[in-house]
Amino acid sequence: MTTSKNVVWHNAVITRQLRQQQNKHKSLVLWFTGLSGSGKSTLAHAVEEKLYEKNYRTMVLDGDNVRHGLCGDLGFSNEDRIENIRRIGELSKLFVEAGMIVLNAFISPFKMDRQQVRRILPHGDFIEIFCDCSIDVCESRDVKGLYKKARNGEISHFTGISSPYEPPDKPELCVNTAKLSIEESVDVVLQMLESRC
Amino acid sequence: MTTSKNVVWHNAVITRQLRQQQNKHKSLVLWFTGLSGSGKSTLAHAVEEKLYEKNYRTMVLDGDNVRHGLCGDLGFSNEDRIENIRRIGELSKLFVEAGMIVLNAFISPFKMDRQQVRRILPHGDFIEIFCDCSIDVCESRDVKGLYKKARNGEISHFTGISSPYEPPDKPELCVNTAKLSIEESVDVVLQMLESRC
Repeated sequence: MTTSKNVVWHNAVITRQLRQQQNKHKSLVLWFTGLSGSGKSTLAHAVEEKLYEKNYRTMVLDGDNVRHGLCGDLGFSNEDRIENIRRIGELSKLFVEAGMIVLNAFISPFKMDRQQVRRILPHGDFIEIFCDCSIDVCESRDVKGLYKKARNGEISHFTGISSPYEPPDKPELCVNTAKLSIEESVDVVLQMLESRC
Repeated sequence: MTTSKNVVWHNAVITRQLRQQQNKHKSLVLWFTGLSGSGKSTLAHAVEEKLYEKNYRTMVLDGDNVRHGLCGDLGFSNEDRIENIRRIGELSKLFVEAGMIVLNAFISPFKMDRQQVRRILPHGDFIEIFCDCSIDVCESRDVKGLYKKARNGEISHFTGISSPYEPPDKPELCVNTAKLSIEESVDVVLQMLESRC
């Protein structure tokens, strides 16, 4: 074995394009934003289930798998919240590069942060889905009991109560999760996706 | 549409196991460690190319796509270096959850950091591959001209010159990248993988 043989080592590269061909669908980010209790995570998982049936490659990112791991060192200060969304954006970019459809379910209350994620992704890869549900409906559901705690002052900086939520101006899709059933909401997302995937 | 219909929303979950079934292979982490110039990245990309031909789902993580993005806020201090590897570990965990084979090419000079990544992954999912190549050979290649700069003092804390490299005690695989050709190195990795995937 000659040494020169080693020198010609080169980087073979499997690109995003090749992975998309392999998966037979485009990779992109579905970004579900909305109040706590607006159904983001439920909708993301339900859409994922349908995409799996279609043999699509998907990944849901939400508080459960990100806040305890990659962003486990971050709290809820303004600075940390911005860094949290930045990392999720970079993470999403890598999954898109890996050929997958990423379904992100985060309150992500501030326009600026969501815009920042849109900016770092190639044009057209960031699909903002607004889970539109009034605070009254979200609070009446209060699945996790968080609104009650926020009203009692046990949780500070709670979006919709003691911290603002800035709805998107021009989301790619607006789903009225207060009125639509889960099945109807899923259909709306899938229809939108069909034209882009 | 009744309100109660919304309340029964549940989290459908596509698990790692389902994704592995879909992909028809196990997901895991191949962690290539070794000196700068030992061929980690080249080997990772070459293995990926072969896995792509077998219709496997893969992703290479290396300095190119991680240091400028997710870890773009980190420098090379001890603290930052530890945080860098921690994030890559968490990132790898998510890709494994997503059903993929992750090929990580990082010098990752310290045992403790690599062990930390091994610890956060389910047992058997972290495959440590030592790219064994003497500093003399790496320096004689000096593809990026980094060794020259390190010797001139233009780069500080350079692994192998001004900062230590701790080789693994019991890596799952040791590849002598000084002696083997790229094709031979790839074969060794694929053979090892065959018994685990």
